[in-house]
Amino acid sequence: MTSRTGRHFLQIPGPTNVPDQVLRAMSAPTIDHRGPEFAVLTTELLASLKPVFGTSGPVVVFPGSGTGAWEAALVNTLSTGDRVLHVETGHFATLWQQMAVGLGLYVDFLPGDWRHGASPEAVAERLAADTARTIKAVCVVHNETSTGVTSRVPEIRQAMDATGHPALLLVDTISSLGSIDYRHDEWGVDVTVAGSQKGLMLPPGLGFNAVSAKALAASRTARLRRSYWDWQPIIEANRRGFFPYTPATNLLYGLAEALRMLRAEGLPAVFARHDRHAAATRAAVHGWGLEVLCADDREYSSSLTAVLMPEGQDADKVREIILERFDMSLGAGLGRLAGRIFRIGHLGHLNDLTLAGTLAGVQMGLQLAGVRIDPGGLTAALDVLRAE
Amino acid sequence: MTSRTGRHFLQIPGPTNVPDQVLRAMSAPTIDHRGPEFAVLTTELLASLKPVFGTSGPVVVFPGSGTGAWEAALVNTLSTGDRVLHVETGHFATLWQQMAVGLGLYVDFLPGDWRHGASPEAVAERLAADTARTIKAVCVVHNETSTGVTSRVPEIRQAMDATGHPALLLVDTISSLGSIDYRHDEWGVDVTVAGSQKGLMLPPGLGFNAVSAKALAASRTARLRRSYWDWQPIIEANRRGFFPYTPATNLLYGLAEALRMLRAEGLPAVFARHDRHAAATRAAVHGWGLEVLCADDREYSSSLTAVLMPEGQDADKVREIILERFDMSLGAGLGRLAGRIFRIGHLGHLNDLTLAGTLAGVQMGLQLAGVRIDPGGLTAALDVLRAE
Amino acid sequence: MTSRTGRHFLQIPGPTNVPDQVLRAMSAPTIDHRGPEFAVLTTELLASLKPVFGTSGPVVVFPGSGTGAWEAALVNTLSTGDRVLHVETGHFATLWQQMAVGLGLYVDFLPGDWRHGASPEAVAERLAADTARTIKAVCVVHNETSTGVTSRVPEIRQAMDATGHPALLLVDTISSLGSIDYRHDEWGVDVTVAGSQKGLMLPPGLGFNAVSAKALAASRTARLRRSYWDWQPIIEANRRGFFPYTPATNLLYGLAEALRMLRAEGLPAVFARHDRHAAATRAAVHGWGLEVLCADDREYSSSLTAVLMPEGQDADKVREIILERFDMSLGAGLGRLAGRIFRIGHLGHLNDLTLAGTLAGVQMGLQLAGVRIDPGGLTAALDVLRAE
Amino acid sequence: MTSRTGRHFLQIPGPTNVPDQVLRAMSAPTIDHRGPEFAVLTTELLASLKPVFGTSGPVVVFPGSGTGAWEAALVNTLSTGDRVLHVETGHFATLWQQMAVGLGLYVDFLPGDWRHGASPEAVAERLAADTARTIKAVCVVHNETSTGVTSRVPEIRQAMDATGHPALLLVDTISSLGSIDYRHDEWGVDVTVAGSQKGLMLPPGLGFNAVSAKALAASRTARLRRSYWDWQPIIEANRRGFFPYTPATNLLYGLAEALRMLRAEGLPAVFARHDRHAAATRAAVHGWGLEVLCADDREYSSSLTAVLMPEGQDADKVREIILERFDMSLGAGLGRLAGRIFRIGHLGHLNDLTLAGTLAGVQMGLQLAGVRIDPGGLTAALDVLRAE
Repeated sequence: MTSRTGRHFLQIPGPTNVPDQVLRAMSAPTIDHRGPEFAVLTTELLASLKPVFGTSGPVVVFPGSGTGAWEAALVNTLSTGDRVLHVETGHFATLWQQMAVGLGLYVDFLPGDWRHGASPEAVAERLAADTARTIKAVCVVHNETSTGVTSRVPEIRQAMDATGHPALLLVDTISSLGSIDYRHDEWGVDVTVAGSQKGLMLPPGLGFNAVSAKALAASRTARLRRSYWDWQPIIEANRRGFFPYTPATNLLYGLAEALRMLRAEGLPAVFARHDRHAAATRAAVHGWGLEVLCADDREYSSSLTAVLMPEGQDADKVREIILERFDMSLGAGLGRLAGRIFRIGHLGHLNDLTLAGTLAGVQMGLQLAGVRIDPGGLTAALDVLRAE
Repeated sequence: MTSRTGRHFLQIPGPTNVPDQVLRAMSAPTIDHRGPEFAVLTTELLASLKPVFGTSGPVVVFPGSGTGAWEAALVNTLSTGDRVLHVETGHFATLWQQMAVGLGLYVDFLPGDWRHGASPEAVAERLAADTARTIKAVCVVHNETSTGVTSRVPEIRQAMDATGHPALLLVDTISSLGSIDYRHDEWGVDVTVAGSQKGLMLPPGLGFNAVSAKALAASRTARLRRSYWDWQPIIEANRRGFFPYTPATNLLYGLAEALRMLRAEGLPAVFARHDRHAAATRAAVHGWGLEVLCADDREYSSSLTAVLMPEGQDADKVREIILERFDMSLGAGLGRLAGRIFRIGHLGHLNDLTLAGTLAGVQMGLQLAGVRIDPGGLTAALDVLRAE
Repeated sequence: MTSRTGRHFLQIPGPTNVPDQVLRAMSAPTIDHRGPEFAVLTTELLASLKPVFGTSGPVVVFPGSGTGAWEAALVNTLSTGDRVLHVETGHFATLWQQMAVGLGLYVDFLPGDWRHGASPEAVAERLAADTARTIKAVCVVHNETSTGVTSRVPEIRQAMDATGHPALLLVDTISSLGSIDYRHDEWGVDVTVAGSQKGLMLPPGLGFNAVSAKALAASRTARLRRSYWDWQPIIEANRRGFFPYTPATNLLYGLAEALRMLRAEGLPAVFARHDRHAAATRAAVHGWGLEVLCADDREYSSSLTAVLMPEGQDADKVREIILERFDMSLGAGLGRLAGRIFRIGHLGHLNDLTLAGTLAGVQMGLQLAGVRIDPGGLTAALDVLRAE
Repeated sequence: MTSRTGRHFLQIPGPTNVPDQVLRAMSAPTIDHRGPEFAVLTTELLASLKPVFGTSGPVVVFPGSGTGAWEAALVNTLSTGDRVLHVETGHFATLWQQMAVGLGLYVDFLPGDWRHGASPEAVAERLAADTARTIKAVCVVHNETSTGVTSRVPEIRQAMDATGHPALLLVDTISSLGSIDYRHDEWGVDVTVAGSQKGLMLPPGLGFNAVSAKALAASRTARLRRSYWDWQPIIEANRRGFFPYTPATNLLYGLAEALRMLRAEGLPAVFARHDRHAAATRAAVHGWGLEVLCADDREYSSSLTAVLMPEGQDADKVREIILERFDMSLGAGLGRLAGRIFRIGHLGHLNDLTLAGTLAGVQMGLQLAGVRIDPGGLTAALDVLRAE
């Protein structure tokens, strides 16, 4: 088969295609993490991270995955028995909520249909009803990686503010940061959770928390046991350019290079590019006569698109054919969506022709799987890409 | 513009996309070229090269470009004032012929229209007419990189043999070796000229000569001055795994890896893949309503396709738009074809989806340049790719 | 200054010099962590890790640092309010003990002078006195990175066994694994804690726990809150070659290569090499007329040597001169040893001549700092290296 | 054995240790050598090369080895039957002279003892005697890589000028450029020959000619056949940032990085560093009680030192032991010096501690081979390195 020549198409919604220059940067020799050269690296890195989160406050970097950064957000701000409000936007929101339960929190889980983002109205209603102010935090996934739905965080914040409720707002941006417009400070988010392997164009292995002053204050009284994930010693050591324990040096090299690339392109251009690629992808899906999972066009994700299979068709079969024949990885349906959708990642280090190749592969794979589609889908996508 | 995110599409007919693993292999530390480890490397390399050329004889590797390997083929086998027959298949055949003239040879240049390969009949006719046997060598470009036309070398050899003429057959395989079926021994070629940067999937910097026993014998009496390009000391030193002067060590690392990849895929599969990608590309060109430059369907090149522009359209304008908007490099028309054609390289480390992205980019670029085409071209190409 | 040409001498006791081939392996493109290729990688990796730990049981790999692996060892096996016995061998033993306190455990901290390893007798005495069996675990640092002292773990286990006490034995091998003989199963260790950046010759970013059947059983009833560090879902997912959350893919690539290198050399040869380099280093220290911090010659570390400064001399000044003049990083004295010692790392990817260069740099640095030493130290080290 | 852990010591006088960052630069994807990005690369490179040669004139870059650059120097400036004066400084001067003979030149070969540089007086004497001005060029090896002797080029030029003879001065700087002070323009050199793999810190694969106006004028009438090595089309194409045939793109990437490093250090600092390392090496040799091959202290090479073995000792045996036991490559005695000397390269990307490790390895190897030496040699070298 031709499957193993040329470059693999990694079109899952993360890890994304790591740019060559980031991989090369990561392959520089490891240096002393307590020496002066390292302090310069850290100081520059931490400063460069802030604009990507849209914050002037601290960004804490952990050796760990995004899952670790979820845990960090909870254990730094909450105490055993606290109530938190999670919103069920999909598989990852469900996992985060399960983690909260496991850590000893009381979780209200606002139910969802996995085709919509978090409802600002529903959040507000719950908070308004919480007259005793027992809810300490609202946890929302900005861009639900399992569904391709982007919640309207600013509206959620406004709705929360309108109730006068003091709950913290914790937001998972694992598959949106560096891809979809996001503004920690301006939107009034208290903890932003992120990972390295999506819009930041790195391999997995780093987790991030951007932290508001209010969250930092909360961390001083929060009582969930924490050690590795504790913000305080990290923020303290970061002041001099160091970390309290050994950081993932070579991933930090890659991060420095990835941030340089994002700066060079400019965040507005980065976001516009993702919007454009998402629009082209939806044009293809619609052109094929298929349905995008996201049911609200205000909530289309710009970093991935989940495609709903026609009744009776197995999405995993399509993915398998595409992997086997065209050496492209797509995202599977997760949890309750298993077999019913597949997900096309169009985030990170991507350009028009790679997207065109991606959509060509999806189109051929659908046809080979016997799914009845209109082959005009790809052409429709090209119309979007060609239009500037 | 989106032009500089994601991976550049290098779809010129060489240098081709160097696989990541080859680039990594090349970045290993340089070793002592006179030490025992190097001898092992060379010995294995030289053995692995033979099947790629289809020869059991020596393959000489030069630090240098394919142009150097042209020169080596001439200076090792010929003497000042010798007559040679070159066949005008295109720009590169013309350059090689100019080199021969510059080196002091008398050159008969069989004229051609740059849309056909070397005619076996015409070659035979010239040789038959040379009753004095003054022609010492016939020089043919197997795959004319400037036109996308592949000459029928076995038929040329047969035609030569039929005349009983003793001329050597020197063949340039720079853009065919490792991409298009080629058999040095079986086809009776005397010197095969190749370079590293096409089907061998390396950066430029190595030139090759496969040498028949007859060519080797000729080299003992040939009198053109030679030093750097002299086969004898290289073949001699190669016996113990060394070179008479410092070889391009890190390119040899890459070569070892590239040969390993070709072995893993298997040469028949490599050739079938190139044939298939060429067929898909021609399906696109015909689908767009455009003309392939190659005028004889026995001579379609499997490594590149030259596309003839409609009257009054500037091919370079199309290439410029494609580079600017879609970050893809295509080959320009060279010499008399400047502005009239562009060339799509589909050789080396390539797969279906990268080809699909390539053809999508060409289609959009043609449209943006105002060339009237049928957008069904891409779909026609996918039909070929999907058909297995 | 000449300080920034040539290769930096990273002679801290970790992170160690990452071999070129490991860095290159890490720079391969990130793949889908849910695809079949990844499952093969994980399965092979996990099998290859076992002999390095000397275990036939599971080895859990975390994206995170060694500090995280400390936490994992505690939270998987213990419950809030459990008593644990830590042994004060130095700075890192102290930090681990502080972590245990912070996680809500009652810690008995056996005092030490930072020049000796954990005393088997003292441990046994404490356990024997614990007739109520309230101590649930004994925590020992195998090789104290802050002092260069290696505790005699088998003797500790024997002493524990002699008391009949059921406490678990948790051992930190962060700076010994892959450098100093270690046998999880044979020595009866319950949890072995390790990191990637020392004997495993990787950049930092991976933590490890090797887990005995007894520890695994304990994890089923242990009640410390855990999520990210929870062994169970990882061991479960590992069965099919996957991880419950995104693993640090590119570090795993490097790990595969590093394990291949350890296998190629053979663990006994690896340990003998470290022993020999340590002996040469001590020969230098003694030859200079200086004192090795480790006070018991049964406990000399083979991965690092801490050198005690003569009264009135500042170790950090020596390190600063060496960094500035000779571009070599050495380890600082930590905690109560700050300024009084410096530490020479001689572990990981190291050979005789790099060690010779290292000791030459230390010798020159001591002289430049005005420390009165006998310059025969280096020659004494070479006598060891030359002796086979 | 410990021989294969850690980094190989490549202490031959070239290829030298290629810096990590140069290897990484070389592993960037190959780009279109006819595109705008390439033109920028070439233009910057060619400008950056000039100061390294000390010239404001053109520097021609060939895909090829230094041997090719020798040939280029001859074939561009001379005609069949021209007389040239070569000076026998050692093995490489002998090879260059043989090449000249092979290319059809009449060669006067000024005899030498392989322990001295080219004698300005002897050159002047030959030119003065050539009243018919039949000698067209004087060919001198600046730094004889086979002996570690550096000829005094400015004095040779002065001596030539004093005779009023119009011969061109062609100088081989293969193992001096970028290591030892050299000034093409100021010293009145007509063609400077260089290669990539020594002071330029690259792998082998590039050859260079710096060309004076007088040499360029000579090239217009010189009649030796040339094609690949012809300066004219290269200089012409270089004006727009291109090459007439495919250049060795990835080596050019490395060259750009290496030139950046030389600029950052500053050429005077680069030369001082080499002088200092050479002085330390000679201190070791003299300290061991051995003899440096170079017999004139005005001509000591700063890039390598050849060590003369005591009567009856086999230098190759010493090298073999050192390679086997300490994984270090040293240069062999070449030609008439085979077995009588070994050569220590101390050029390129090197620092004090790597040199110390190198000399430690030589010392141990000599001892293991049974050569009677004073072990104070290494200490004497450290005295030089420490002195600054």
